[in-house]
Amino acid sequence: MAHDIYAQEIHPKHSYAPIVKDGLEVPETAIQLDDSPTGPNEPFKIYRTRGPWAEPEDGLPSLRSEWIEARGDVEAYEGRERNLLDDGRAAVKRGAASDEWRGASRAPLRAKDGKRVTQMAYARRGEITREMEFVALREHCSPEKVREEVAAGRAIIPNNINHPESEPMIIGNAFLTKINANIGNSAVTSSIREEVEKLRWATRWGADTVMDLSTGDDIHATREWILRNSPVPIGTVPIYQALEKVNGIAEDLTWEIFRDTVIEQCEQGVDYMTVHAGVRLPYVPLTSKRVTGIVSRGGSIMAGWCLAHHKESFLYENFDELCEIFAKYDVAFSLGDGLRPGSVADANDAAQFAELKTIGELCKRAWDYDVQVMIEGPGHVPLNMIQVNNEKEEQWCGGAPFYTLGPLVTDIAPGYDHITSAIGAANIAAGGTAMLCYVTPKEHLGLPNRDDVKTGVITYKLAAHSADVAKGHPGARDWDDAMSKARFEFRWHDQFALSLDPETAQSYHDETLPAEPAKTAHFCSMCGPKFCSMRISQDIRDEFGDQIADLGMPTFDFDVASSDASDISEAREGEREMAQEFREMGSNVYLKETPEDSPSAQ
Amino acid sequence: MAHDIYAQEIHPKHSYAPIVKDGLEVPETAIQLDDSPTGPNEPFKIYRTRGPWAEPEDGLPSLRSEWIEARGDVEAYEGRERNLLDDGRAAVKRGAASDEWRGASRAPLRAKDGKRVTQMAYARRGEITREMEFVALREHCSPEKVREEVAAGRAIIPNNINHPESEPMIIGNAFLTKINANIGNSAVTSSIREEVEKLRWATRWGADTVMDLSTGDDIHATREWILRNSPVPIGTVPIYQALEKVNGIAEDLTWEIFRDTVIEQCEQGVDYMTVHAGVRLPYVPLTSKRVTGIVSRGGSIMAGWCLAHHKESFLYENFDELCEIFAKYDVAFSLGDGLRPGSVADANDAAQFAELKTIGELCKRAWDYDVQVMIEGPGHVPLNMIQVNNEKEEQWCGGAPFYTLGPLVTDIAPGYDHITSAIGAANIAAGGTAMLCYVTPKEHLGLPNRDDVKTGVITYKLAAHSADVAKGHPGARDWDDAMSKARFEFRWHDQFALSLDPETAQSYHDETLPAEPAKTAHFCSMCGPKFCSMRISQDIRDEFGDQIADLGMPTFDFDVASSDASDISEAREGEREMAQEFREMGSNVYLKETPEDSPSAQ
Repeated sequence: MAHDIYAQEIHPKHSYAPIVKDGLEVPETAIQLDDSPTGPNEPFKIYRTRGPWAEPEDGLPSLRSEWIEARGDVEAYEGRERNLLDDGRAAVKRGAASDEWRGASRAPLRAKDGKRVTQMAYARRGEITREMEFVALREHCSPEKVREEVAAGRAIIPNNINHPESEPMIIGNAFLTKINANIGNSAVTSSIREEVEKLRWATRWGADTVMDLSTGDDIHATREWILRNSPVPIGTVPIYQALEKVNGIAEDLTWEIFRDTVIEQCEQGVDYMTVHAGVRLPYVPLTSKRVTGIVSRGGSIMAGWCLAHHKESFLYENFDELCEIFAKYDVAFSLGDGLRPGSVADANDAAQFAELKTIGELCKRAWDYDVQVMIEGPGHVPLNMIQVNNEKEEQWCGGAPFYTLGPLVTDIAPGYDHITSAIGAANIAAGGTAMLCYVTPKEHLGLPNRDDVKTGVITYKLAAHSADVAKGHPGARDWDDAMSKARFEFRWHDQFALSLDPETAQSYHDETLPAEPAKTAHFCSMCGPKFCSMRISQDIRDEFGDQIADLGMPTFDFDVASSDASDISEAREGEREMAQEFREMGSNVYLKETPEDSPSAQ
Repeated sequence: MAHDIYAQEIHPKHSYAPIVKDGLEVPETAIQLDDSPTGPNEPFKIYRTRGPWAEPEDGLPSLRSEWIEARGDVEAYEGRERNLLDDGRAAVKRGAASDEWRGASRAPLRAKDGKRVTQMAYARRGEITREMEFVALREHCSPEKVREEVAAGRAIIPNNINHPESEPMIIGNAFLTKINANIGNSAVTSSIREEVEKLRWATRWGADTVMDLSTGDDIHATREWILRNSPVPIGTVPIYQALEKVNGIAEDLTWEIFRDTVIEQCEQGVDYMTVHAGVRLPYVPLTSKRVTGIVSRGGSIMAGWCLAHHKESFLYENFDELCEIFAKYDVAFSLGDGLRPGSVADANDAAQFAELKTIGELCKRAWDYDVQVMIEGPGHVPLNMIQVNNEKEEQWCGGAPFYTLGPLVTDIAPGYDHITSAIGAANIAAGGTAMLCYVTPKEHLGLPNRDDVKTGVITYKLAAHSADVAKGHPGARDWDDAMSKARFEFRWHDQFALSLDPETAQSYHDETLPAEPAKTAHFCSMCGPKFCSMRISQDIRDEFGDQIADLGMPTFDFDVASSDASDISEAREGEREMAQEFREMGSNVYLKETPEDSPSAQ
């Protein structure tokens, strides 16, 4: 039973420690810490989507159903008729999807006539929803702050009323930086159960949202399994499924087929959808001299359609109707950057920025319908050209949350593009981007496997966190400080437990020093037992730290601009006494053990 | 014969293609490229230390000996007496180092009385050396530019006259960003042959310099093997060996033991040495309230010594004599940051900047002796606090090249610190840092193995290159553009060959699409054969790209500040005709193959 591994936390020192308040149970993970020499340590608590996990065929409980019903503004209805073509031509031929969802299903909900059921609508009316309260507890801020940010369009809570299984979370510059993991089958490979497994795996390591980018067969059935088992918001790119319905021929797409597909997905519970409505006909020629043309699949579908018909994009032309649909289910827009650069050569060019400006206009139209919006961004951008992306997005899109793919800062390292993109991601997030779409080591080369998904998620978690630290997000650096304190005190098990990836951290330590005594030893494999700088510093502090302060040699605030040697020489007086005391104590700043005494030497 | 793997290039499309000019042979690697649809591609040439490689027990030929002799300013002499303690107490007990170098050896050289034999001295006198010419060819700049930068102290060519095997290279902000890989045994593990193997392995993947940080037994013998086989400059931290000579008791260190160790290493040919002369007695108390104290081994040795004796550092007190010694052999200082922060909490604090300011004073004193200098930097620094490090270094150290370890931008990801540090490294290099010391995935956890060394080197190559792209270094982006062009044209073998790590790139591609036809297929595993955005873009360009330009729809320079829809609508006229033509051609922007036709479907 594959799901069993999710029932346990990722390290024995981790435990489920929810915040329970006002009838809400908001998951957090508590990390148990060993004692410091100076006394016990409080457990360190971190934000984490925990689950819950169920048998995949049962699906998760409906956390939010009561909240949604209690508002009295939605109605169940029969919904769109299920169509075998929803699962592609192979399903039509076969007469069924290959692994149809058979768990419990609900009639779809939609807003009652004249009602606005989006979190933005409530926020603008001054109402604090249960979702906002939940988010506020997770983010350790006031519900009012959440409401204000959502009302202003600076943050979104992607929560389709037909995905009540999800734990509310928020995406916005004022909150913790979030990350998205992509999953999804393709024409070349993979099964439904594998996709559910990837969803759970990505979430286990910290994905805040998951996009199902399936492009192969059984798209509807796959998505149903994913939604019914997902505690995080699910995003999609509906044009992928629409394209499958017309057998991959972009010019055969119509607004009607697209709209029907959107409604199908709204009823299933997709929380946000990428729509490339900014790829307008006149922008297509702007890409013709690019080094890498159009690299977004959605962007190239729409570009191909526009050219074939010589018509303005049906997404652009029908954007208001789309807003009306999204508003009925509280689906959020992720306004897609179909003309994003696919190489550093094409970064920040006319095509990219023409589209971004149009996206900004569409964003404001969506807001007229109280529809939540985030804005997608690049892609491939050299380090020095990143920040202008945040600035233009802020300026043109009214502060809507920015959601970027990396960006990769160089093109020369396929196989390492989780890293080339994490460099860009950390920078763009530090500059204001709210959510980062992960990139795995397989980017540009192949489909990610389980290990790649984990590597992508962990890499993006560290990039997002480093941005939170750089932004001075309240409490962000506490995690670093807890780790550094554990490191300084040689609490090895705590270092593993506090790591984003405890099992990898411990396995690396085991490679050099596998014996259990090494996990409590006051040295590490870098220097060995005879000499260790951390040990020396700790001994210096243990013996002299407080006295140094007492003797008038505190860690004074060194003014780097004006300081000179005389600033510092005042500190010397007390040291004379200390030196004597130090010698008397036997100068035991070094472990005097011979290598034979050390746990690792055999 | 392990060395055989180095005789071949890292990909079949790579070949040794030296620049041959004025009797110099400067290694470069040519990457053979397949034809584009529009015609053949010139081989793409990249900077790479190639070797040459010899049997480890023979050592490399002495590339520079003739140049050094021709200057007539050095003399051979008997040299310091070899002492078994050079290899530690175990060697004394045993009566020999465990694997003494038995290859050819030369009498050491030193400057004749009254002669200054450093590259800086020549540069300041207006002389362009063979080393500078070699460097200029490697960097594709004028020899005069090299001379100017070295004369000004803004760049160094670390080239001990006793390490004639090395290929000259330059470290400075005006040149390609370089990376260093650390190797070295420790008390816990590893053998001499392993260290030579690590040197070669690191160099194969692109390390520009290598530091031998051995702290265990047989330090002298290990270093001899390394130097005699190294085509790149070798750096050391001589206090590590000095500490071994006093059995790991820092307070037993003396200036005399240290000086003798430095001379020993100068005679062997070490090209640059880390000296923590900026760790002054009055700065030690500044670290007592830090979260992670002193994390530099050299820094903590000196701090321990200063406190035990209550004396100013013997390195600081005897700095001028050290300069005189370095000048005789053209050894460069790497002025060590013994008080660098070991956690983001301690970044940019009083201790760190007090030391940096002192280092700046020492730098200028070294320049008085024409000794080349670079400056070491942190460490652990949040993203938003990185750039001030470049600024202070520039301001206080007169523009001497900055050489940083990362910095890591967060502490919470042990096991992934090659990535947390690459984020900082790319940023600090883009801001002016000249060389980056790599960090492997094992940082803080264990000793790197072969795979870790490779991962560390590749990660730092991509960080360094992304900085060069950001700085607009002449020609840097050409590599990205060559890759992107290959990507756009589905030249898969070229993509692998152009990657920093061809074997990993190809193996990832093989995982999803192993068949050879997939390597020439016009699609990738992400989308499969039925739909591919790159393919669509290419077809659009193939069919319409030139005509779009001809029809008055060029990639006009889009003014992002002032543009509006009317700027763009002018471009629409010509499109009507194109749309018709597109339909007539059968709208073949999509491959109509069924999945069964694709090479991967079986």
